[in-house]
Amino acid sequence: MTDTADLPREPERPSGWLSPEGIAAARRSLPLLYVDAVPVRVDDSGDVVGVGLLLRVTPEGVMSRALVSGRVMYHERVRDALLRHIEKDLGPVALPQVPPTPQPFTVAEYFPTPGVTPYHDPRQHAVSLAYVVPVTGDCRPQQDALDLAWLTPEEACSEQVQVEMNGGQGLLLRQAMAHVGRMP
Amino acid sequence: MTDTADLPREPERPSGWLSPEGIAAARRSLPLLYVDAVPVRVDDSGDVVGVGLLLRVTPEGVMSRALVSGRVMYHERVRDALLRHIEKDLGPVALPQVPPTPQPFTVAEYFPTPGVTPYHDPRQHAVSLAYVVPVTGDCRPQQDALDLAWLTPEEACSEQVQVEMNGGQGLLLRQAMAHVGRMP
Amino acid sequence: MTDTADLPREPERPSGWLSPEGIAAARRSLPLLYVDAVPVRVDDSGDVVGVGLLLRVTPEGVMSRALVSGRVMYHERVRDALLRHIEKDLGPVALPQVPPTPQPFTVAEYFPTPGVTPYHDPRQHAVSLAYVVPVTGDCRPQQDALDLAWLTPEEACSEQVQVEMNGGQGLLLRQAMAHVGRMP
Amino acid sequence: MTDTADLPREPERPSGWLSPEGIAAARRSLPLLYVDAVPVRVDDSGDVVGVGLLLRVTPEGVMSRALVSGRVMYHERVRDALLRHIEKDLGPVALPQVPPTPQPFTVAEYFPTPGVTPYHDPRQHAVSLAYVVPVTGDCRPQQDALDLAWLTPEEACSEQVQVEMNGGQGLLLRQAMAHVGRMP
Repeated sequence: MTDTADLPREPERPSGWLSPEGIAAARRSLPLLYVDAVPVRVDDSGDVVGVGLLLRVTPEGVMSRALVSGRVMYHERVRDALLRHIEKDLGPVALPQVPPTPQPFTVAEYFPTPGVTPYHDPRQHAVSLAYVVPVTGDCRPQQDALDLAWLTPEEACSEQVQVEMNGGQGLLLRQAMAHVGRMP
Repeated sequence: MTDTADLPREPERPSGWLSPEGIAAARRSLPLLYVDAVPVRVDDSGDVVGVGLLLRVTPEGVMSRALVSGRVMYHERVRDALLRHIEKDLGPVALPQVPPTPQPFTVAEYFPTPGVTPYHDPRQHAVSLAYVVPVTGDCRPQQDALDLAWLTPEEACSEQVQVEMNGGQGLLLRQAMAHVGRMP
Repeated sequence: MTDTADLPREPERPSGWLSPEGIAAARRSLPLLYVDAVPVRVDDSGDVVGVGLLLRVTPEGVMSRALVSGRVMYHERVRDALLRHIEKDLGPVALPQVPPTPQPFTVAEYFPTPGVTPYHDPRQHAVSLAYVVPVTGDCRPQQDALDLAWLTPEEACSEQVQVEMNGGQGLLLRQAMAHVGRMP
Repeated sequence: MTDTADLPREPERPSGWLSPEGIAAARRSLPLLYVDAVPVRVDDSGDVVGVGLLLRVTPEGVMSRALVSGRVMYHERVRDALLRHIEKDLGPVALPQVPPTPQPFTVAEYFPTPGVTPYHDPRQHAVSLAYVVPVTGDCRPQQDALDLAWLTPEEACSEQVQVEMNGGQGLLLRQAMAHVGRMP
């Protein structure tokens, strides 16, 4: 949930659309729709063998690991938002295999108040559709990410990695591994 | 997608929250998060034997059948929104069994532009998490609904009923029946 | 995976059916179809608040905790097998809410050889469809179970409980909690 | 459900394993575990644009269309069975993307008695885990299949194609299209 740069850049804005201030107000008034993608490497039989985590520095200067995550825009399909955010974070030749079904493996509800759900985003109430997305191409961290690390499912679920993830994304990652049958 | 009366009635509105005009603008700028519930009767082994459809009159005076549907509010959990809308439409003693999992059977993307997806809502871009919800109590249509009819899965999927459903909810109903193994 | 008493007791056995010896041979030749049920208590909004675990003594005299589990019989529907095994283990008034959909939350593949998958059954290759099943009635352990304990999701996923579960059922339980959004 | 040639060809058969006659008896005594795969072509955003159907001649000389389907063998993982049957039916360079999750989109219960479920297999009680599998390579029908036809989701769900499918596979195909949001 770190796409602070993910403000709308619609080429044209019909009258009545929200201004940036309007978006900021919407963040305090409406749940915002997000997608979370867990990028994975799979073997020939589809078994997950690696999980890709972005390494970022938070505004407070702390190193953290993150999933691919971002907002769904107005008039954008969920699958197109998935593709856009994967490309934004992993580069243009990651070759993601967006799942054919819109059924997410779970729905993560990030609340501005901690403790309502296991997910937390101090900026907003975001509801995120979460998908496991195999990527077969060359992945390179973009923009604000320092690195992209490929971990085994076991490493990704380890305490050491979990503590580096924020807002409940560590849990979401473990839920993804549970879903694909690779939770240790 | 007929909850036009579903405007926010938060008891207190912190400064910076959206006004009704702001919500209207948000409807033209952001995808809004909805839930769709397909109310069903099940037998002892969980097999769906009936589907509940609301009978409504559209603003244009046309009779239509509808699922339980409505917006997720700020700081409301998806499962609480489901419960609230079921109570709003089926009454306080419907005794719904909200599924333990947040995983919806599908995600219906209602676009203001027809044809982008099979779902359409001229008022807004709404993304709806869809659930099959068994109800065991006494269901009575509330508010603007004229009637609640219990149909067999076969009847609910029939051409005659499908043409009375709007915005792609007929398809969503058939997807629900496919999910529970009761599509004819 | 402890239904050793779960041999077929069909009232009539047409010629050509397997004898008990035949079933034993089948166990070494074919994957057997099982169901696993995770019995849960839910609150009004469907959120899981308790998990039911059976307490048993293994043939080796070790205390162990187990899910409801058993074989699907010839000419038996999966949902009827679920119902039968829940009644067999939790008694006749457990009032289970078998899910309307046949889609399991996962498929657990118990191999006779350890390490092929995270699940293991030394007796056989069993493939189990796993479901979370809310129960609302009075549950009493039957037959060979000493007790039925209701734990919180957090307790059920704790190391202390996990080590008392065999064959990978501890993992399966944690997968169930991940699926319902209640994994700690 | 047409893998009559799919008898076990294990390189070694430990004592106590079922003979071919034993397998035949098992078919009358136990539910057999199957997989069904719906081969699809997807576009860059994962949306299904084509469905692959095998054209076969039944033993009675009738043309029929079929999904990829077959038995799970002893000591074989479900995902390996999926891969084996896809390769068997579509050839060695179909490049299937077996889903990372073992969660099927539905479970099809083929009963020897018609009418118990919508699926029917006169030879046996088969319980099949059904998956949608994108294929990206060159698909060529193998063995007993005359042809492999790529249809649009709309064509695949049309009455004309549905009547050429047997045992409920037409329904299973429509369930797959419902799952991926492409049912007409």
